[in-house]
Amino acid sequence: MSLPLHVRVAEILRAQIADGTLPVGSALPSESALCATHQASRGTVRAALAALRNEGLIAGGRGRPPVVRDTAVVQSFETFMSFTAWAHDIGRTPGQRTIEIARRGASAIAAVSLEIEEGTPVVDVLRMRTLDGVPAMIERSSFIEPVGRLLFDFDSDSGSIYAYLTGQGVDLHEGRHTIDAVAATDVDAAHLDIDPGSPLLRERRRAVDHSGKPLEYADDRYRPDRVAFTIDNTHPAANGAAPDIRIVKEIS
Amino acid sequence: MSLPLHVRVAEILRAQIADGTLPVGSALPSESALCATHQASRGTVRAALAALRNEGLIAGGRGRPPVVRDTAVVQSFETFMSFTAWAHDIGRTPGQRTIEIARRGASAIAAVSLEIEEGTPVVDVLRMRTLDGVPAMIERSSFIEPVGRLLFDFDSDSGSIYAYLTGQGVDLHEGRHTIDAVAATDVDAAHLDIDPGSPLLRERRRAVDHSGKPLEYADDRYRPDRVAFTIDNTHPAANGAAPDIRIVKEIS
Repeated sequence: MSLPLHVRVAEILRAQIADGTLPVGSALPSESALCATHQASRGTVRAALAALRNEGLIAGGRGRPPVVRDTAVVQSFETFMSFTAWAHDIGRTPGQRTIEIARRGASAIAAVSLEIEEGTPVVDVLRMRTLDGVPAMIERSSFIEPVGRLLFDFDSDSGSIYAYLTGQGVDLHEGRHTIDAVAATDVDAAHLDIDPGSPLLRERRRAVDHSGKPLEYADDRYRPDRVAFTIDNTHPAANGAAPDIRIVKEIS
Repeated sequence: MSLPLHVRVAEILRAQIADGTLPVGSALPSESALCATHQASRGTVRAALAALRNEGLIAGGRGRPPVVRDTAVVQSFETFMSFTAWAHDIGRTPGQRTIEIARRGASAIAAVSLEIEEGTPVVDVLRMRTLDGVPAMIERSSFIEPVGRLLFDFDSDSGSIYAYLTGQGVDLHEGRHTIDAVAATDVDAAHLDIDPGSPLLRERRRAVDHSGKPLEYADDRYRPDRVAFTIDNTHPAANGAAPDIRIVKEIS
């Protein structure tokens, strides 16, 4: 499959950073040089640089070429919080179908995570997410009511809830993601086109604001034949260098 | 459950680093000050400092107090490569029972990962791993023959294969870990005391040496009610700070 040019340009720059062609501390070529090298438009080059900046690989760049700041890609905050942003980042087309959006009392599990009483009103969203049109994940989110109520003015079939909420000024500052495995329920199975009881890769997420107040509890279940997580790590040098670790969510 | 003192001392120091009581660049209190504060022996304090050093939180310290170098813990290379080291790091007692160790032709999957022809001799190890005596994981490793043959001189019921091999000079330099979910086979189920078909959290690992040559392909299957992976991430500051990410394997 042919990837968009900005994804390929970003891949080439990542490889040059990783192999030392562009060492830490060095400046990247100018935007116009990158346009010429990759036969790309300025918009394409800027999209590639934005991806690297998000990943923490480069910094600076207001009016001058950005500088390499790290050799290890870590998946950006946004692409770890947003299925839509992640899919775009890897050059795939995300999609979604809303199965249900409901204001109801918090479940026991959501209540613990959101630090509210069980039964306190929350907004629950259940969506099936696709990659290039193929079912990949079942997403269940519970938002505290003041945040979730914003979703009744949003077409949740249209794209990223994360982008919409942050655009509305919701302070989704920090996420804790817990990864385990779970058997598909009948609902999961029907929407993901698998047998009930099949193993699913589950990512539960608790998102809090700057003050540590919980805003969202989510339970995302991926078809493991479609999405996996990878972690690369390297032995620290004998001189006590920091451990080098890189984590990404990727297509299986 | 009461954790060993060195684990608790490390936890307290991590919290002080995380909350800024010990900011990046500052020196830690001296070993004797730490001994007095925590009513701990010098060995205990040194074990706690070794854990923080492994995690990349502190650096230096030859003859003077170490300095805080980062606020984000990443799980150390060693504890990500070795179940034994990981269990010790979190204050649990690891155990193992070897089910099989065999020299045989590489499976198709191992062969691809090890970059050898299918059927080329490898050494396969199948072990059941326990935490505090309770079955937690089924470990399947395939080593290239020159590495795996060292294991016929090792009592694989006695502890860490990783520690043994690195002690023998094997250059396990870099690991790629792929995390997904898989249904328990009859063998998995029997040893982990669950029903066949139950979802397991799987971590596949490919370990290579400095030159990139594959040495080991592993398939570790965890009971998700016993072990999960967590990833913490924080929104980068508007000034373009590096994304802050922390990944750990932990008790469910």
